[in-house]
Amino acid sequence: MTPQPPSQAPLRFGANYVPSAGWFYSWLDFSADDARRDLADLAGIGLDHVRVFPIWPWIQPNRTLIRQRGVDDLLSLVDVAAEFGLGVSVDLLQGHLSSFDFLPSWVLTWHRRSLFTDPAVRDGVAAYVDRLTREVATRDNVFAVTLGNEVDNLWPSNPTTPEDSTRWAAELLDVARSAAPRLLALHSVYDATWYDPGHPFRPVDATDLGGLTTVHSWVFNGVSAVDGPLGPATVSHADYLVELAAASALDPARPVWLQEVGAPRPDIGERDAPAFVRGLLDAVTPNPALWGVTWWCSHDLDRSLADFPDREYDLGLFTVDHEIKPATRELAAVVAESRAGRPAPAPRPALVCGVDLRTQPERRGEVAPGSEFHAEWVRLRQVGPLAIVGADRAADPAYLAARGIDAVLTPA
Amino acid sequence: MTPQPPSQAPLRFGANYVPSAGWFYSWLDFSADDARRDLADLAGIGLDHVRVFPIWPWIQPNRTLIRQRGVDDLLSLVDVAAEFGLGVSVDLLQGHLSSFDFLPSWVLTWHRRSLFTDPAVRDGVAAYVDRLTREVATRDNVFAVTLGNEVDNLWPSNPTTPEDSTRWAAELLDVARSAAPRLLALHSVYDATWYDPGHPFRPVDATDLGGLTTVHSWVFNGVSAVDGPLGPATVSHADYLVELAAASALDPARPVWLQEVGAPRPDIGERDAPAFVRGLLDAVTPNPALWGVTWWCSHDLDRSLADFPDREYDLGLFTVDHEIKPATRELAAVVAESRAGRPAPAPRPALVCGVDLRTQPERRGEVAPGSEFHAEWVRLRQVGPLAIVGADRAADPAYLAARGIDAVLTPA
Repeated sequence: MTPQPPSQAPLRFGANYVPSAGWFYSWLDFSADDARRDLADLAGIGLDHVRVFPIWPWIQPNRTLIRQRGVDDLLSLVDVAAEFGLGVSVDLLQGHLSSFDFLPSWVLTWHRRSLFTDPAVRDGVAAYVDRLTREVATRDNVFAVTLGNEVDNLWPSNPTTPEDSTRWAAELLDVARSAAPRLLALHSVYDATWYDPGHPFRPVDATDLGGLTTVHSWVFNGVSAVDGPLGPATVSHADYLVELAAASALDPARPVWLQEVGAPRPDIGERDAPAFVRGLLDAVTPNPALWGVTWWCSHDLDRSLADFPDREYDLGLFTVDHEIKPATRELAAVVAESRAGRPAPAPRPALVCGVDLRTQPERRGEVAPGSEFHAEWVRLRQVGPLAIVGADRAADPAYLAARGIDAVLTPA
Repeated sequence: MTPQPPSQAPLRFGANYVPSAGWFYSWLDFSADDARRDLADLAGIGLDHVRVFPIWPWIQPNRTLIRQRGVDDLLSLVDVAAEFGLGVSVDLLQGHLSSFDFLPSWVLTWHRRSLFTDPAVRDGVAAYVDRLTREVATRDNVFAVTLGNEVDNLWPSNPTTPEDSTRWAAELLDVARSAAPRLLALHSVYDATWYDPGHPFRPVDATDLGGLTTVHSWVFNGVSAVDGPLGPATVSHADYLVELAAASALDPARPVWLQEVGAPRPDIGERDAPAFVRGLLDAVTPNPALWGVTWWCSHDLDRSLADFPDREYDLGLFTVDHEIKPATRELAAVVAESRAGRPAPAPRPALVCGVDLRTQPERRGEVAPGSEFHAEWVRLRQVGPLAIVGADRAADPAYLAARGIDAVLTPA
């Protein structure tokens, strides 16, 4: 599937589906009726898709055993989504969810092997990616598979090197593409890949691998400490990350999916959440690179479940009792406005970035929240939409035109 | 439940139940019919009990969530055993099985906490032990719970100290006893606890905690290298371990359950397996301390499942297609002979052990397979049944009488 140039395609709006009863543990007791009740909430606010998360070790408890019932439960969820006209993107390797890693016994303790570098594990994972991708591709409403949610968070418990991380993802994306050429095959990383100079997953993994670039914008990454909850740095962070991703791609037309964004407490207090949601969406939705926005997450987490970081409990668009929240009404309003049509992108200026994230990952800290570059971008972004452009392409008219950039500013 | 003095009670014979289809992964798709077919095999050779192994993280995927359906599946298996008149001993925390550790995400990676020392984890585990023990105690054919299979193998991935290991097990056994006073509450360790001088689980854990002492005799621990497959050290190892356990207990009448013993390849070749089984059972069954023998395991492991140590695939009394093996007929014959009545224990001599395993765990290597003491015991054991007695009690007539010892030999 070749995505349309993003500025012409309608924006997609969806939610990361977190079951209201029993979180992802509910896969062990899957109920289509429970899922139906949850997805009705999401369809009711006008969303067009969900991102869903099977739990890897429960489907593949042995390297050579993929449980058909586990697959069938996933397909049932996809079919429930279809009942509501919802598209589905399937993340395969969970893997990492809300601070918990789900890893099979065949990569732990006495069988400890790195997910990213061990050849036998790679073969097992490839079989899993192949099988699940083929299975979900039988459903017309599935439009994408992602290798797994924020697989970069599976490091450091699984050692890897930058080269190994890239090879691992590239090989598995090939497997997914071969299994289902019709689907978007995607990679997904937490933003440590963008900002942590020592992280063994690099920005080029996000920008070069997969059918589009995905980004996850979480203001607890340091940006809310700059000026949260409603300051310009905090509210524009999603747009900033989309711009960093767009500026770092070789292809000026490569779309960027804001695959996760949320309003986490205590960074964003309950009272400020509606204004934060409106502000961040107003900032990011005009971005011509934007493919869509997928909110984290659909439903709150029952407080009877233990050990989650406190912020994870209240991230839902709906409570565990299916009550809509004030911030959710803001999202729903933006969705409705967006359905009226996406405005033609207006030309905008770009700020030149002296760090080449493609070739200088060791300098990632220089674009992280709180860096000089970030502060300058935030300052100028208050005037209006502002792109980012790499120094090596800042004088390339064709490139600038392709990205809708009509002026180039150098940092003060 | 107070077990009868072992020399008066009939010997118990059973099997460690390993499902023929899908190994323990089959819990994720539990089928009472499949279990019924398997347990029919075991009842058919005259066994009186099974030891069963729920998978901890699938029943308690969150510290505060114990899945009722997981519990119900376990109860269904217990009820199937009852259909065949089989007693059931339930191991709670798996935990460790055939080289694989099953650990929940709430003690791994970003939530890494030692199972043995973290207070919150301890509370979670205590809730699990309490709940499962209460539930299985509702079934009359359940006679025991064990904290978990070879929990000492969960170290070193879970750090602990000797004191912490003891406290952990003692507290959880209290929980189990309170939950179901009628049941034997037991501890279970791999024999590293008996032989490895540095192991942070000690012999006193086995001999002092729980309603009786359990031992697991595996000739791949080094003893088969002495003279396997049919040499005296190899064939007598189970008896040796039962004796070490009996000699190390404070109570001279404390029973010892040979809770696991098997004929692992390549140490014991297929051709030698029947003679090995007959030899080891002839050696150990006259031991007055012996409570019973539970074979590892009921059924072979399908070779389509990956990553197990090679020896794990062929340990079954039955193949995955329910075919009985020649060695199994030897076990069945011994069971039938035993049912005719347990002979009154004949007095026997004891070899004095200069290592006090209760107080000198750092000297465990001096009784390990291949040690001088072990070699001397094996040499003399060829003449006839031979006890072991600690030097501090070798001149205590009441103690010696209680253990049926009529003469004391000192090592050459």
